Amino acid sequence: MARVKKELDFSLILAALSRHVDLNAEEQACFCAYLSHRSLKNKELLQREGEVADSTFFVTRGCLRSYSTDEQGLEHVVQFAPPGWWIAELYSVISKRPGTTNIDALEASEVLVMKRSDQEKLFIELPKIERYFRIITENSLVSSRQRIIDSMTLSALERYQAFCKRYPGLIFSLPQKQIASYIGVTPEFFSKMKARF
Amino acid sequence: MARVKKELDFSLILAALSRHVDLNAEEQACFCAYLSHRSLKNKELLQREGEVADSTFFVTRGCLRSYSTDEQGLEHVVQFAPPGWWIAELYSVISKRPGTTNIDALEASEVLVMKRSDQEKLFIELPKIERYFRIITENSLVSSRQRIIDSMTLSALERYQAFCKRYPGLIFSLPQKQIASYIGVTPEFFSKMKARF
Repeated sequence: MARVKKELDFSLILAALSRHVDLNAEEQACFCAYLSHRSLKNKELLQREGEVADSTFFVTRGCLRSYSTDEQGLEHVVQFAPPGWWIAELYSVISKRPGTTNIDALEASEVLVMKRSDQEKLFIELPKIERYFRIITENSLVSSRQRIIDSMTLSALERYQAFCKRYPGLIFSLPQKQIASYIGVTPEFFSKMKARF
Repeated sequence: MARVKKELDFSLILAALSRHVDLNAEEQACFCAYLSHRSLKNKELLQREGEVADSTFFVTRGCLRSYSTDEQGLEHVVQFAPPGWWIAELYSVISKRPGTTNIDALEASEVLVMKRSDQEKLFIELPKIERYFRIITENSLVSSRQRIIDSMTLSALERYQAFCKRYPGLIFSLPQKQIASYIGVTPEFFSKMKARF
């Protein structure tokens, strides 16, 4: 993990923070001092099911996904993370128990890494950072609950439309089978469905 | 909404807080001063789809649920809230836009009510309260994501087992059709499935 702080570009993460909290230059520097950087190759695994996760990742380039594998070996996408999004195996980060999902890169990607132990220090040092994470966690919970409702009440086509609304930048850049996996249909069904409409 | 503060029993909510943050007597009093109380009859609606929600509810007696209704009028349970649980139309509370789910009482119930405007005052007055909500929101997000994974990877029977693990106190007290609605099967299928195992 490279720690060449001088070369890191924090503009995207600081813009993300500024949408919810006001940090002065000193507070921004304090926050950024806790970040390290990692480059990922296409398909590189960042978090493996069964291992304990200790960090949260902010994507600055490329695209990551978290996914779960069922007994038949089929992958089910839990979340995509394009630039500007956070992604983590939150269950494992919180509980310090082995995680149940994988996180990998869908193309060559760059992430900023925040260790949970550092995040907890920041919560005490800078309450605005705890506010920021409280707010984005609330927003993620709303999205996650909406996806549960969608899975119970919407058709596959309507779930695809919900995906397009949530991830407008990914509609054309993601492989079709990844989108099919997110909305919960086979790539064959997905391809026929899109051809029909 | 009765506001007879003297008669309210805050023991359950203070115990819930104490699992995540330490509050002294003065801080506890400050927190409780923002709570009001509401009694609900069986089947009474606390939050109606299409209306703007401004409060979060902590259940002290009975059981609440949030649910969404599909185009055929079928109800799909998003969450149950037995005593000690929080429940809210979080999308609407955060966005101040009309909510997309209903919240009602599955039996005669009592809740403590925290208005969002008061909660936001508390976040500034008592950062420990923001910490508490950050932690329980993280935990809810983990549960919600797990339910998404379960819906994609588990059979109906396994989803029922996951329900039993999440809500052990509700297995025998809830009407069967409510549990069926939560795990996403018809009451008829649910009854046959339970008979078989």
